[in-house]
Amino acid sequence: MAGDGSDQRALQYEQTLMYGRYTQELGVYAKEEAARLRESGQRRSVSRTLDLLEYDKGRCAKCRRSGYPYVLEAPPQDFISVCTVRCQKFLISRVGEDWIFLILLGLLMALVSWVMDFCIAICLQAQKWMYGGLDSNVFLQYLAWVTYPVVLITFSAGFTQILAPQAVGSGIPEMKTILRGVVLKEYLTFKTFVAKVIGLTCALGSGMPLGKEGPFVHIASLCAALLSKFMSLFGGIYENESRNIEMLAAACAVGVGCCFAAPIGGVLFSIEVTSTFFAVRNYWRGFFAATFSAFIFRVLAVWNRDEETITALFKTSFRLDFPFDLQELPAFAVIGIANGFGGALFVYLNRLIVQFMRKQKAINRFLMKKRLLYPALVTLLISTLTFPPGFGQFMAGKLTQKESLVTLLDNRTWAKQGIAEEFDYIGHSEAWKHPQVNVFVTLVLFIVMKFWMSALATTIPVPCGAFMPVFVIGAAFGRLVGESMAAWFPDGIHTDGTIYPIVPGGYAVVGAAALSGAVTHTVSTAVIVFELTGQISHILPVMIAVILANAVAQSLQPSLYDSIIRIKKLPYLPELGWGHHEKYNIRVEDIMVRDVRYITLNCSYRDLHNVLLTGHLKTLALVESTESMILLGSIERAQLQALLSLQLGRPRRLEYIRERAVEDKKRLSVVSNDSSENSSHRASQEVRFQISTEDSSLSPTRPVPLKPLKPALKRSSVVERSTEIPTGPHDHSGIALKNLFCASPDTEALEDDVDVEDDMTIREITEWEEKQLDEQVNFNNCKIDPAPFQLVERTSLHKTHTIFSLLGLDHAFVTSIGRLIGVVSLKELRKAIEGSVTVKGAKVRPPLASFRDSGTSSSENEATELHKLWDRHKSMPLPREHTPSESDEKSQ
Amino acid sequence: MAGDGSDQRALQYEQTLMYGRYTQELGVYAKEEAARLRESGQRRSVSRTLDLLEYDKGRCAKCRRSGYPYVLEAPPQDFISVCTVRCQKFLISRVGEDWIFLILLGLLMALVSWVMDFCIAICLQAQKWMYGGLDSNVFLQYLAWVTYPVVLITFSAGFTQILAPQAVGSGIPEMKTILRGVVLKEYLTFKTFVAKVIGLTCALGSGMPLGKEGPFVHIASLCAALLSKFMSLFGGIYENESRNIEMLAAACAVGVGCCFAAPIGGVLFSIEVTSTFFAVRNYWRGFFAATFSAFIFRVLAVWNRDEETITALFKTSFRLDFPFDLQELPAFAVIGIANGFGGALFVYLNRLIVQFMRKQKAINRFLMKKRLLYPALVTLLISTLTFPPGFGQFMAGKLTQKESLVTLLDNRTWAKQGIAEEFDYIGHSEAWKHPQVNVFVTLVLFIVMKFWMSALATTIPVPCGAFMPVFVIGAAFGRLVGESMAAWFPDGIHTDGTIYPIVPGGYAVVGAAALSGAVTHTVSTAVIVFELTGQISHILPVMIAVILANAVAQSLQPSLYDSIIRIKKLPYLPELGWGHHEKYNIRVEDIMVRDVRYITLNCSYRDLHNVLLTGHLKTLALVESTESMILLGSIERAQLQALLSLQLGRPRRLEYIRERAVEDKKRLSVVSNDSSENSSHRASQEVRFQISTEDSSLSPTRPVPLKPLKPALKRSSVVERSTEIPTGPHDHSGIALKNLFCASPDTEALEDDVDVEDDMTIREITEWEEKQLDEQVNFNNCKIDPAPFQLVERTSLHKTHTIFSLLGLDHAFVTSIGRLIGVVSLKELRKAIEGSVTVKGAKVRPPLASFRDSGTSSSENEATELHKLWDRHKSMPLPREHTPSESDEKSQ
Repeated sequence: MAGDGSDQRALQYEQTLMYGRYTQELGVYAKEEAARLRESGQRRSVSRTLDLLEYDKGRCAKCRRSGYPYVLEAPPQDFISVCTVRCQKFLISRVGEDWIFLILLGLLMALVSWVMDFCIAICLQAQKWMYGGLDSNVFLQYLAWVTYPVVLITFSAGFTQILAPQAVGSGIPEMKTILRGVVLKEYLTFKTFVAKVIGLTCALGSGMPLGKEGPFVHIASLCAALLSKFMSLFGGIYENESRNIEMLAAACAVGVGCCFAAPIGGVLFSIEVTSTFFAVRNYWRGFFAATFSAFIFRVLAVWNRDEETITALFKTSFRLDFPFDLQELPAFAVIGIANGFGGALFVYLNRLIVQFMRKQKAINRFLMKKRLLYPALVTLLISTLTFPPGFGQFMAGKLTQKESLVTLLDNRTWAKQGIAEEFDYIGHSEAWKHPQVNVFVTLVLFIVMKFWMSALATTIPVPCGAFMPVFVIGAAFGRLVGESMAAWFPDGIHTDGTIYPIVPGGYAVVGAAALSGAVTHTVSTAVIVFELTGQISHILPVMIAVILANAVAQSLQPSLYDSIIRIKKLPYLPELGWGHHEKYNIRVEDIMVRDVRYITLNCSYRDLHNVLLTGHLKTLALVESTESMILLGSIERAQLQALLSLQLGRPRRLEYIRERAVEDKKRLSVVSNDSSENSSHRASQEVRFQISTEDSSLSPTRPVPLKPLKPALKRSSVVERSTEIPTGPHDHSGIALKNLFCASPDTEALEDDVDVEDDMTIREITEWEEKQLDEQVNFNNCKIDPAPFQLVERTSLHKTHTIFSLLGLDHAFVTSIGRLIGVVSLKELRKAIEGSVTVKGAKVRPPLASFRDSGTSSSENEATELHKLWDRHKSMPLPREHTPSESDEKSQ
Repeated sequence: MAGDGSDQRALQYEQTLMYGRYTQELGVYAKEEAARLRESGQRRSVSRTLDLLEYDKGRCAKCRRSGYPYVLEAPPQDFISVCTVRCQKFLISRVGEDWIFLILLGLLMALVSWVMDFCIAICLQAQKWMYGGLDSNVFLQYLAWVTYPVVLITFSAGFTQILAPQAVGSGIPEMKTILRGVVLKEYLTFKTFVAKVIGLTCALGSGMPLGKEGPFVHIASLCAALLSKFMSLFGGIYENESRNIEMLAAACAVGVGCCFAAPIGGVLFSIEVTSTFFAVRNYWRGFFAATFSAFIFRVLAVWNRDEETITALFKTSFRLDFPFDLQELPAFAVIGIANGFGGALFVYLNRLIVQFMRKQKAINRFLMKKRLLYPALVTLLISTLTFPPGFGQFMAGKLTQKESLVTLLDNRTWAKQGIAEEFDYIGHSEAWKHPQVNVFVTLVLFIVMKFWMSALATTIPVPCGAFMPVFVIGAAFGRLVGESMAAWFPDGIHTDGTIYPIVPGGYAVVGAAALSGAVTHTVSTAVIVFELTGQISHILPVMIAVILANAVAQSLQPSLYDSIIRIKKLPYLPELGWGHHEKYNIRVEDIMVRDVRYITLNCSYRDLHNVLLTGHLKTLALVESTESMILLGSIERAQLQALLSLQLGRPRRLEYIRERAVEDKKRLSVVSNDSSENSSHRASQEVRFQISTEDSSLSPTRPVPLKPLKPALKRSSVVERSTEIPTGPHDHSGIALKNLFCASPDTEALEDDVDVEDDMTIREITEWEEKQLDEQVNFNNCKIDPAPFQLVERTSLHKTHTIFSLLGLDHAFVTSIGRLIGVVSLKELRKAIEGSVTVKGAKVRPPLASFRDSGTSSSENEATELHKLWDRHKSMPLPREHTPSESDEKSQ
């Protein structure tokens, strides 16, 4: 399970470099680990049941559902639990209400966002102050200008690296994967939270072109997950997984909402970016939490005297009466199309850098050794180029990201011909003015330099997003077009009556929305822009530009987040492309895996053992018999491992030894029968106790139970037996099991228990195990999913995709009139979709699909199946002949 | 099928009165009718295949899929069809692109919206002109004021009544139902379109407090459906049903978008109002179409010189620098909460009126006779009360809805103390000023009167919505609060520095969004408000008020649309309430119908006949045998009817007669064998021909084939046989069938064919039919769904609800390890949800649920099932006892 350390460290490193290869195995490992944690969590909750009876209602309901009848079969607890259930209900009804959770989440995130902004502002001011204070010596100034971000970024990278490498990057791709139903548990821990918050503050404080939005989505989700965990102390409802997923979706909205003080845009953006199918009943949650969060976030600004009242973050003041002329629309459309190409280029460039770094073995090996060198080098490069007295003077290098944006959205025209000289570049705007160089050149340089800088900077292994940098570049491009228009039409385009000069700030707004929309493949950036600027007058230009940019970008490249998902090889199902109608012609039978691993109802433990040895599947099909192949249900691998562990495990062997001993004793004498039974009881108790300490060494967060378990648990032996079922595989030492769980600490376990008379030799153990393996499996205590999702061979790829994304499936069995004939998992589906998406034009279809199209109609297939069943009943001659299809041959 | 006329007319009348009872039977009827139409459409396409070979690709693929191998088995057509497939492909790739459809839809709807607005404006102006011209005589003035709307509304009601009663009302409830997957085909016809457009124009032109939004959603959907039908002439993709549903969803967005020129709000509102689960991949469609539509709509206004450039519909000009003070927020919250109550009251009042009218038998009977009296009376009442020289002077009665809204959103304060006198009420605003009465009184009267008037007016059987009236009322309430605040704090609340007076217009915006949000249970009214006013500065107050209003209203009443769905008894699945956690405890086994109608694989036609006679189910389960009950699939009722018709129908009997005749002849002589066979061939041909004319009399739209069918179709007898399968039940005259299809025109059919020697007596026919009925059913040509959706008994109600709404299911079979044990349909689910939703607090749970909770754990149930299967294989003693559960007993 642990793998060899160096390998994992290398892997971890790759992850932190953002272009970490997320192998399938790692995903599987993560899931299994998560399952194990959940299992042990359940166990823990059981032992805690006795201490914290007042908090157990929710959990007990869960236990009952999962089939461990602890409390139910312990009669004296009954009336206590009835009382506590009442109390519990009240608590749950209060604390379990969604809105309390959402308010807490919103409040927390607003505070985090505000404090972070505050710290970032201080960091940036400090840099400016240092830079300003050293204006006597340019070299010292340069050193200060460069060292400061290098130190901050290096610290951020190192800190994140050490504490939680999962905190690296934007986090939106991971959230997308998690909301898709994949368990990436390590992404939602407290460590990651701390790493992300501190790492992000430092990274943004450095002044690099990095964004806050993506990480904020992740931070909000972390916050929600942790809050959920905390709240679950008070109410059981917080352990409902589907509810937690819903809350995570709301948290994503909060993340965007409190980052930009944009509740509506936040909700929409988070839906577009993270969901495939959105449950409208969750809509209000997002709105509620995001609004509350944005409200608090802005109230904090008022309270801090930054603002007089609640207003937009980047308030603009364009004129309202005549925002733009109808004839300006082509210019807006041009911005949209150009930004569409730009967005696609950005995604491509970003991926190119990652892939270049990954392919260059020499660089890769060198960087692997010095992990912090890459961030430091990149930061050095970027900050050198922006050094204001150096090249930075031509690209407004001394402005921070926020300042740039404010100046770009300014409602005054910079380059009005003739009047330009008399116009006073007040405030930050003067940074754009260079004595020698035209403002257009400054803008072009700014756009070009920032473009590659942002693409490069977002590959640094620190918590960072790309939204804000892209937003600023888009605004600059829009401003460029706007200034050009203003220079071209100094008196505006409108001909009759009043003069309405062109507002370049409006173009900047349009450009910002379009480019960020193109990079993220979202339309809701339009709404974010309105909320950020506090003006909606440019709604039509913005919408047109965003839609055009999306159309262009989506047909060229995946979105930035999808690109990262592919780079990281996260287990995610790609979207079906626009209007790929051939999807309707590929059927499940063309893509399914026909060689399904299954277990039969009457198999032996040996079969189970063999099946578990051969594959790495998460669930196994349970069929009636090899002959009928009628699908009865599916069982999780962990359950089967538990079954096997139970059968071959130490406790059972000890019991066997005990029984043998008792029998021996009986044969020898009949005296002191009572006391021996007592001692064996104690033995079993201590064995269990020992198991639990063993377990605690594996999960260090678990409190070691110092006192022996309370007598209530020990009442009936059935209870004791069943508590042992969910214990992880590590608790048992068996020779046969060693094959299965290679890294289990069994030798040490064998050594340290001395109080039990384990007098069996290895040969005896092997013999005993062989005997045990030949027994038939008893599925009584096994959790079986009696209705795994089923498809038929003829289900189209399109429908399969819809169902998989709707229900968040990981795999589905393919059945033909009750008989299991194949299995489709996300992997196959992904392959099928990508296979036919990448090669456009020359439709790539599996050979079977063309065969099917050429002749055999599907209804005949159906009829064939029916005929066979028919024949089982009475042998009637078939009225017409039929071509035998592939599926017939396979399904014996 | 037809029912008795008076009954149906009564039904229709009730529908048009908006409180029409939409009985289950009618829904079933609608669906069956739709299925029949689809079937006959398929047949028609087959006959057209030969004439319009160039357009057949899409359809042929469909035919092939549905199992009618026409073209495939007609070799000489093959190379032609290959060519045409190529041409077809090109056409489809162009015309089939979504964006072309969306642009067309947007354009069309913008034109419709603009033309309609234009006509409405003319109507309203005409009324004003008439009223103004007659100012010498108050009585004549009153007559003109009152007659005009009465005539318009009566015409609208009558016109809609005659042309298409489905056009009555908002249409959003119906769209919600259609998007849910229910076929309400009669709601998407051209007739309905015409009726809705003309009816709505007249209704709104009358000046009654009616809205445009809801009907516009319906009109846009109609437009999309018709456009789809039109486009399907060019490409097969338009026949894909799931695509059409997606297009309908986009159309709803267009409807709202071009009604208010609010693309973003339109998309969001339509999602909130019509969807349960929203596919994010359809998001762009809505945005694209709605933006384009809104753009064209506003461009038309510019082109018509109404506007100088593209701006918002109800542009406001509140100050940007300090939109509101933080201390004003409590006032906004109060507006939100009060409007929440108000919204719930509105929905309640609306329903109360409908129910009152329905319950009062005397009124009902009277109104049923004089259908146009009710609209006329209501209009008379409302217009009398708004007569400006009468009571109307106290409630700004002379203002149209649009004018009221413009004045309410005005950024000047009406009631500023002291300064009020000097302030000049310019333009329409003076309507609010009354020499004797305070502006507050006017506002209060306006709110109260308009409130009940709107609730009453929306029950008139004309095409109308309630959004706009509610919006105006909300704005008036907001204004009232705003004016009060302005009177209370004449110099604003802000204490230090500059004076920022309170802007009552901002309160009006907040109020409008909150009340319309409360009535429709949506949050996106906030966005609509921003887009309507063109200002987003009040975003936080609006969001807070809307969320509070929603919270209050949702906990008191269903949304207006859900209320109408309930009133009309449309087949819709209600939403699960907020945080009803007991839903997790109800299981499918508690609500499912255990007495499932099924057919077995080896049943006889008699069994089929009996099953069809006993129930009105749409689909029947096909099981392996009565003993095993293993579910194999499901068959549609129509398919079974066709099977039965084929077995007992006239063609088969004639064939039998012919065979008998041939046999007789053979026995008599062996001469002229060849010629007799020839004649029998001709007979069979003519029989078929006669059938098709018979069919055409039933569906009048179908072109009567004047020439005999082309020889290509007659090549092989297999082809001919299969063409007859999908013909409707009416084509066959059988005695046994008469029970099934009571109104079939069989006697006339028996009389008019004289050229076929139908010499069987009734007794002979009965005998022959009895013989036929005893044969075993041949399912070869029957379309079987091999994977109907399955649930298990333990699936929770919550999950069942999710799955039903996600996949748009109508029913699902409940299986236990492959065996059919029950069925759950929408009806049961609705009952279960409503049963436990209405009675809050004292949880209403089925008796079985409590039984389950008290002891039997679910895993035991599972184990029990497994044990039984286990026992089938080998009889092993069960290791522990189990309580026999309900499901065990039932599933023998």
